[in-house]
Amino acid sequence: MDPSKVTTLPLKDLTISNITENVNLVNSTNPSPRLRFLLSRLTTHLHDYARETRLSQGEWLEAINFLTATGQICTDVRQEFILLSDIFGLSLLVDSIDHPKPAGSTEGTVLGPFHTHDAEELENGAIMAHDEGGEKLLVVCTVKDVYGNPIEDVAVDVWETDSTGHYDVQHPGRDRPDGRCVLKSDAEGRFWFRGIVPVSYPIPHDGPVGKLLLRLGRHPMRPSHMHFMFEKAGWDKLVTALYLRGDPYETTDAVFGVKQSLIVELGTVDKEMAARYPGVVEGTKLLQYDFVLVTEQQSAELRDRNSIEALGRLGMEKVKIVDGLPVPELD
Amino acid sequence: MDPSKVTTLPLKDLTISNITENVNLVNSTNPSPRLRFLLSRLTTHLHDYARETRLSQGEWLEAINFLTATGQICTDVRQEFILLSDIFGLSLLVDSIDHPKPAGSTEGTVLGPFHTHDAEELENGAIMAHDEGGEKLLVVCTVKDVYGNPIEDVAVDVWETDSTGHYDVQHPGRDRPDGRCVLKSDAEGRFWFRGIVPVSYPIPHDGPVGKLLLRLGRHPMRPSHMHFMFEKAGWDKLVTALYLRGDPYETTDAVFGVKQSLIVELGTVDKEMAARYPGVVEGTKLLQYDFVLVTEQQSAELRDRNSIEALGRLGMEKVKIVDGLPVPELD
Repeated sequence: MDPSKVTTLPLKDLTISNITENVNLVNSTNPSPRLRFLLSRLTTHLHDYARETRLSQGEWLEAINFLTATGQICTDVRQEFILLSDIFGLSLLVDSIDHPKPAGSTEGTVLGPFHTHDAEELENGAIMAHDEGGEKLLVVCTVKDVYGNPIEDVAVDVWETDSTGHYDVQHPGRDRPDGRCVLKSDAEGRFWFRGIVPVSYPIPHDGPVGKLLLRLGRHPMRPSHMHFMFEKAGWDKLVTALYLRGDPYETTDAVFGVKQSLIVELGTVDKEMAARYPGVVEGTKLLQYDFVLVTEQQSAELRDRNSIEALGRLGMEKVKIVDGLPVPELD
Repeated sequence: MDPSKVTTLPLKDLTISNITENVNLVNSTNPSPRLRFLLSRLTTHLHDYARETRLSQGEWLEAINFLTATGQICTDVRQEFILLSDIFGLSLLVDSIDHPKPAGSTEGTVLGPFHTHDAEELENGAIMAHDEGGEKLLVVCTVKDVYGNPIEDVAVDVWETDSTGHYDVQHPGRDRPDGRCVLKSDAEGRFWFRGIVPVSYPIPHDGPVGKLLLRLGRHPMRPSHMHFMFEKAGWDKLVTALYLRGDPYETTDAVFGVKQSLIVELGTVDKEMAARYPGVVEGTKLLQYDFVLVTEQQSAELRDRNSIEALGRLGMEKVKIVDGLPVPELD
């Protein structure tokens, strides 16, 4: 390391009141305007937090140990930092910021850590959950644009737990995907499949995040729901879920995912409907929903407009959008 | 989990603008007023950060992966989260908040991750660094109160690297402590020992924190320094360090620890002094410094006053100090 090549600025005698601007100066020489903006706000919030709370060294060390334990419990199939983000509402917030939904379109919600990329592509009408303990459910949906036009050939990813509240990947002996599939919408925007009635379940709570929830008097439960993800070129990717009305955890979801517009009341398959859906008997539980997608362009325009407004509220009147993300424009 | 025992509040339809108050409500039922205050400010800053930067899901995931890698490289002898705190200036800031120093007393600085609890107690005059490659150094100091009265029997912890810039614990074959010791000040507040001239060195930079520094165009170097820690019942613990004047990294310390008042110019032992310090030859390098401690009460009073002022600036006029830490007082 050749000191003559050092490009940072003279730093000495840093105090409670001048350290933030100095750390920001040191971090401002990297070439990415977006990274500079992210770091500058990060340092400011981190320092303001310590100054406002008068954070003690004991509390700081407890936080260091908590973060270390959180990292150390992570594996290929367990992501404790995502859980941490979920229980602080950050995951839902970032989804809301990144995928703003214009009026009339279906709202998004948290992805969660249990989506996989190995779900089978199934035909409409197929059985996607083979748990004999689950109550059978027929799911009949449509996917349309905001004007009511059907959207054909949308890839619809669906996933749910088994009747014990566990996703397939949570079972050590998993040899093939179950309780998940990918379908395609037909010319009328319809897709339908046979699953099981979702149940409520706890998020993994035997690690640092579970201990924190306990300390806060919070439970780890999520209300019963089924995950849906919609993808088609030109359309804004929609990550969402449907929640069952009347679930005891409907109003206390540990990860803050429930939205009124995503709560559904299950119906029952009648005789006429049973005749139209092969293999489905009268009296089977029925979930029906009409999803509405927006185009990538509609979403990007809304996101850019929201960005410029949000930075404006920070006093940054001149904002540039770089790769879809805002940076303050320097003169 | 019995839903009837759920004590959290109804949460649904959380949006960019209402999620923060709702997460704060859910986290407000735990019994500790200090924990409630810490969590409420944490959630607010975390959410404000995402809202102000319009944090994207890609960036969020990159942060999740960075934190995971930071946790996973930690071991019994490596604490990457402390390094992360150091390079963002947070460690220095927390020290400054927790140990405010009244005018006339010696300033503190970062502890760093290399203090141990197994240093030998040595007599004044002893050799505490046995590295033959190091340049010999006589260190002669005093420790006094702000009125100039000597303080006897202060436990003085001292630690420094060897001549290659490594602390003893960084060598895999370490069988006993070296480059560190604990001394006691005498009746005149004096303590003295024989070490080696400190050298500059890089903080561990082969992990996530090192990669981040590289990406930011920052070097990992610390200027040459020697650590000191002072402890005696009734006196505020002082964690500090002395820095050598003229070090090439004096103004670009990777962890922001240098303070003007802690920079020293090395002298040389003259004939008269060599005669007074057994085993020390004329021409040996000399470090002299007079440390000034404050009482625990002086420090606590200043810390409480600073806390009340800082929370007042947040609009919290009624503040209670609980176990030495502030919480807003609720009516």
